[in-house]
Amino acid sequence: MVIGLDVGGTNIKGVLMNGNKIIAKIKVATKSRTDKKILINQIFDCINILKGGAQKIEKIGIGIAGPIDFKKQLILNPPNLIALKGLKLSKTIQDKFGIKTIIEHDVNCFVLAEAVLGAGKKYESVFGITLGTGVGGGMVINKKIYHGAHGSSGEIGHITIEKNGRKCKCGNKGCLEPYICDTGIKQTAKQIFKKQIDSLRIIDDSAKRGDRRAIKLYEIIGKYLGIGLANIIDTINPGVIIIGGGIMRAGKFILEPARKEMRKNILSQGAKKTKVLKSKLGKFAGAIGATLITS
Amino acid sequence: MVIGLDVGGTNIKGVLMNGNKIIAKIKVATKSRTDKKILINQIFDCINILKGGAQKIEKIGIGIAGPIDFKKQLILNPPNLIALKGLKLSKTIQDKFGIKTIIEHDVNCFVLAEAVLGAGKKYESVFGITLGTGVGGGMVINKKIYHGAHGSSGEIGHITIEKNGRKCKCGNKGCLEPYICDTGIKQTAKQIFKKQIDSLRIIDDSAKRGDRRAIKLYEIIGKYLGIGLANIIDTINPGVIIIGGGIMRAGKFILEPARKEMRKNILSQGAKKTKVLKSKLGKFAGAIGATLITS
Repeated sequence: MVIGLDVGGTNIKGVLMNGNKIIAKIKVATKSRTDKKILINQIFDCINILKGGAQKIEKIGIGIAGPIDFKKQLILNPPNLIALKGLKLSKTIQDKFGIKTIIEHDVNCFVLAEAVLGAGKKYESVFGITLGTGVGGGMVINKKIYHGAHGSSGEIGHITIEKNGRKCKCGNKGCLEPYICDTGIKQTAKQIFKKQIDSLRIIDDSAKRGDRRAIKLYEIIGKYLGIGLANIIDTINPGVIIIGGGIMRAGKFILEPARKEMRKNILSQGAKKTKVLKSKLGKFAGAIGATLITS
Repeated sequence: MVIGLDVGGTNIKGVLMNGNKIIAKIKVATKSRTDKKILINQIFDCINILKGGAQKIEKIGIGIAGPIDFKKQLILNPPNLIALKGLKLSKTIQDKFGIKTIIEHDVNCFVLAEAVLGAGKKYESVFGITLGTGVGGGMVINKKIYHGAHGSSGEIGHITIEKNGRKCKCGNKGCLEPYICDTGIKQTAKQIFKKQIDSLRIIDDSAKRGDRRAIKLYEIIGKYLGIGLANIIDTINPGVIIIGGGIMRAGKFILEPARKEMRKNILSQGAKKTKVLKSKLGKFAGAIGATLITS
């Protein structure tokens, strides 16, 4: 029996798993992003609820929204979880419950879950991307997270695709993120719809009804995504790319133009066949992935 | 004792190695790029010369300039070695000499040599780039070539860095290659010097003498290279990037602005420390790397 938590700025999601089977699930709103005591107590509560009647918990895995130093098991400076800054959370939990605990970046948990149990099951190397408020990424090779030399592999939101292009919140220009993240899509939507768009759900619904401007918008966004996908494939040639996150509600409206642009931009004939799939495990992917982390 | 050959459109280079020691070296002009019989006989001759008095050759490794299918040990369609198109060269050589033979893409041989015996010795993961007529790349993880799912990892000449930018010979626009390869640099040089530049050696010499236009040219080229390096690091975060090829004659005039631009563009603080080094093993790196290939 293993517990997995996915701790984000909005929600905490958790699962209790027995092998590949989910025994229990919870999802609660994050009580505080800034107060350490409140947040840690809430994490303890979640673990206690999931432990429930389970006789023996072998391990706890925790995905954290924000940069961590995996080797040191240290949370760095997560903008949406300031309460946890500088904390060795795995030690805190281990001390409380006496159960071996590991923390990991939440995007890596997502990719690991999809690689082991989801859309990437059949593939040796899996690159995963989450599209939401920000753009995250990670890679799993032979069912193991590939952290890279400084633990920052997969930061594909910040690869340059259009030198001197749109301003990114990182301070540089022309990164991939400001074209395909939530606010970036709204910015492009404003140009197309000639008005402020507050929620992309409205556009998703319009696209499904066949609205030409909504479809056009997602074609533009999909093309940018496709350039990013081609860059990943030309660089590291993973077996599959799996995309999750809120933006994927738009599904084929983004994915079809993205795949087309990707194939146009990839050099190698063989790699043009790379599959780009929507994530399969849904909202609990991160928590499920957290149960699969190994040190 | 292992023989390594580096078969290119201009030269064939070869080494006989005993462990990490070079026992013999040869370098000859490629007799034909198009005539299969002439070229294969020349490869046989090279092997015979290197074999010389060696009592037992354990293995032959061959680096090929152009796309190969490593798994099938098949040469695909190398533009500069048309003579070898569709050939299973390792089988041909194995049949002739009775010695186990493996072929590999020449850029991968270069990176492997630098990772095992050269500038990348101390690093777990090494990304290598060759800058010349074209731009090649490859990755070595734990001293093993990382081929990727379709054998085309490392094609970093064709990542998009400037959407709608300079036309690339692959047919797309804004790839990295047309800014930093030999002809790309000459194109930019023509704009700066207001005349046709036939050889970059002249510009290298001018830069060394302190010529401001030459230094400015390499600053521009270095900035493009730096964007490419940052994209590689954000995507896969290797421990070191090693750069070889003829363009590296310009050394620090390209590398210094490249490193500066790279650090500006990388997201993660940790990864900004990534070292970018000039290759160490010189012109025989590919042949040395060919001796290190394992199947």
